[in-house]
Amino acid sequence: MDAAELERRLAEQETLLELGLALAETLDLRRVLTLALEQAEQVCAAETSSIWELDESAGELFFRVVRGAAAPEIGNLRIPVGEGIVGSVAASGRAEVIHDVTADPRWIGDASGSFDTRGILAVPLVSRGRTIGVLQMLNPVDGDSFSDDDLRRMRLFAGPLAHALENARLYARLQRTFVETVTAMADAVERRDPYTGGHLHRVVAYSLVLGEELGLSVADLETLRLGATLHDIGKIGVPDGVLLKPGPLDASEAEIMRRHTADGAAIVQRIESLRPLVPIVRNHHERLDGSGYPDGLTGDRIPLPARIVAVADTFDAMTTSRPYRRALVAEAAAAEIRRVAGAHLCPGVAAAFDRLYSAGRFTIQEGERVQGSLSAQLDREYNRW
Amino acid sequence: MDAAELERRLAEQETLLELGLALAETLDLRRVLTLALEQAEQVCAAETSSIWELDESAGELFFRVVRGAAAPEIGNLRIPVGEGIVGSVAASGRAEVIHDVTADPRWIGDASGSFDTRGILAVPLVSRGRTIGVLQMLNPVDGDSFSDDDLRRMRLFAGPLAHALENARLYARLQRTFVETVTAMADAVERRDPYTGGHLHRVVAYSLVLGEELGLSVADLETLRLGATLHDIGKIGVPDGVLLKPGPLDASEAEIMRRHTADGAAIVQRIESLRPLVPIVRNHHERLDGSGYPDGLTGDRIPLPARIVAVADTFDAMTTSRPYRRALVAEAAAAEIRRVAGAHLCPGVAAAFDRLYSAGRFTIQEGERVQGSLSAQLDREYNRW
Repeated sequence: MDAAELERRLAEQETLLELGLALAETLDLRRVLTLALEQAEQVCAAETSSIWELDESAGELFFRVVRGAAAPEIGNLRIPVGEGIVGSVAASGRAEVIHDVTADPRWIGDASGSFDTRGILAVPLVSRGRTIGVLQMLNPVDGDSFSDDDLRRMRLFAGPLAHALENARLYARLQRTFVETVTAMADAVERRDPYTGGHLHRVVAYSLVLGEELGLSVADLETLRLGATLHDIGKIGVPDGVLLKPGPLDASEAEIMRRHTADGAAIVQRIESLRPLVPIVRNHHERLDGSGYPDGLTGDRIPLPARIVAVADTFDAMTTSRPYRRALVAEAAAAEIRRVAGAHLCPGVAAAFDRLYSAGRFTIQEGERVQGSLSAQLDREYNRW
Repeated sequence: MDAAELERRLAEQETLLELGLALAETLDLRRVLTLALEQAEQVCAAETSSIWELDESAGELFFRVVRGAAAPEIGNLRIPVGEGIVGSVAASGRAEVIHDVTADPRWIGDASGSFDTRGILAVPLVSRGRTIGVLQMLNPVDGDSFSDDDLRRMRLFAGPLAHALENARLYARLQRTFVETVTAMADAVERRDPYTGGHLHRVVAYSLVLGEELGLSVADLETLRLGATLHDIGKIGVPDGVLLKPGPLDASEAEIMRRHTADGAAIVQRIESLRPLVPIVRNHHERLDGSGYPDGLTGDRIPLPARIVAVADTFDAMTTSRPYRRALVAEAAAAEIRRVAGAHLCPGVAAAFDRLYSAGRFTIQEGERVQGSLSAQLDREYNRW
């Protein structure tokens, strides 16, 4: 190599070191992927680029992020390992440059009608000795096909990317397992009480109907969903003698029962990814006039999602039979919610309840519809981790 | 730069890229630290090297790994941020080369009498914009003092190291939080039952006494400790009507009660770091003759830690009063354990119990001693994460 070439290589290495550093500085999966696609275009300019991840259990490749013109049309694509060019690179673990895709027997056509693929550069992402995905660049911006030099640079870039991606996946998986375990425990806690069977499911559904009516964002609805699921997790520590008592609680029993809000918050508080749920778990028994617990918060100081869960929880408690009293009919429960709005329950949430109830839309089925649409939106955004 | 210098730099960059890649390929804290010290010596040969981590809550630096002659003597050292040279680099965030330490007013002397520090190279480890530790090299192997070139290379090396270290710390912290949360839930489950108050603590203590007597390694004792803590976690799903029934269970209640082993195993199974506990949680009610549950395992097919917890659990159940029967005195419980050894309980574990019991060492206090020594050993090895 002559001096000019050496200097070019040195500058290139420095860029790669910097890109690798930036990738290594986060465990946020979304951030890793977005950053990586930005960076990939610095290393090798292409019309569109995508990072495919391997779903090992399904034997398929999918992606969470894609850049460029064709992005909107191909978001939900899944490709079996071994099929097409990207699937073939995942299977072989060998990087490839394809100069003319139409001449390649593996080519399965463009997923998007508005995009015309000419050249492909596809590099496997390998971490811990396993192929975990494929980085794919389509159509070089300047020139007809990707060069061997493009290939060499992208292979170097794929190393730090693969590790950053795998680390972020492992971190996300651990967080998800954590949430799933705590949710499984919430279900188990509920199963103790035959009288409230299905309470959790109904409170989640009602909360989501209210949240949608109040115009909450997808992210806030997701927090509401998880918070409603875990709102009674603190009951794990309440003895059945209190929890299931067939009659009103005496003062010391009521005190034990009230503790479930702070106890639950303490559990949720410990989990970084669950921390946004603390206000729901802790404050869903507050009342607007300050007569609730555990903090005696008043009015708007009670966080909105806690005010929402309070209405859902109250309605379900009133319409469900307990050992010592029969359920109210829905009409009487709705009247009671109107009556205590302002004093105990939030007037804004109670008004939303009223609109929904009058229109016949305050139902489990409506809640399940909101949950379904929420899951679909989150899946589209993040796919399954 | 001339061509030779350019080539040297290029080779150096390639090495740094490779080192960074290797560091990024794991989230295991121990592995990151050990690998980093090996690598540091490739970048810049020194008589001893250490990676100091910042304990933010204490405002102190500590380390988990150190290489070289002085290692054994300085393992427990903690240095306040701002004190000494390493503390000063942590405070300033600026890398430094010290050519003659005795002339530096910040120098606080050698921690080890057998080591004579001449030169120091100390580089801050910065990730997510915060200083998280210091990489320190003492005494260059060839030459009197570290060069500016050594400093330049170590600064480049410190980048990927800092990110790898921080990622591994975050992963370890999430795992630890997870274990703590599940343990807190196990405690909460136990608090439901006033008749078994302290059962968990006693079963952990007895299991550890037995484990030590049977010669288990530190790692196996730690697994045993966690497994004994979580052995009844599945009871989270058992209604109090069954769990606390003041009398023998009927067939369907017994069936519900038995489910706690498989239910608990399902919870623990989901958490990668808790997976080694599955055999304890699932199989602590197996019996040697195959009449136990849930798998009807026989003899040695019952994992040893499950056989240990079974003896601890049986002894505690017999010596604790239940609503429907009074506790046996310890002597009668010991006789019963001898009687069922071979049929229900493992003869080897029962023999260990017998030796301990006869010597007056089968006590909570002995268990707490084993636990204390275990914690101290684990702390020495890994320090606090």
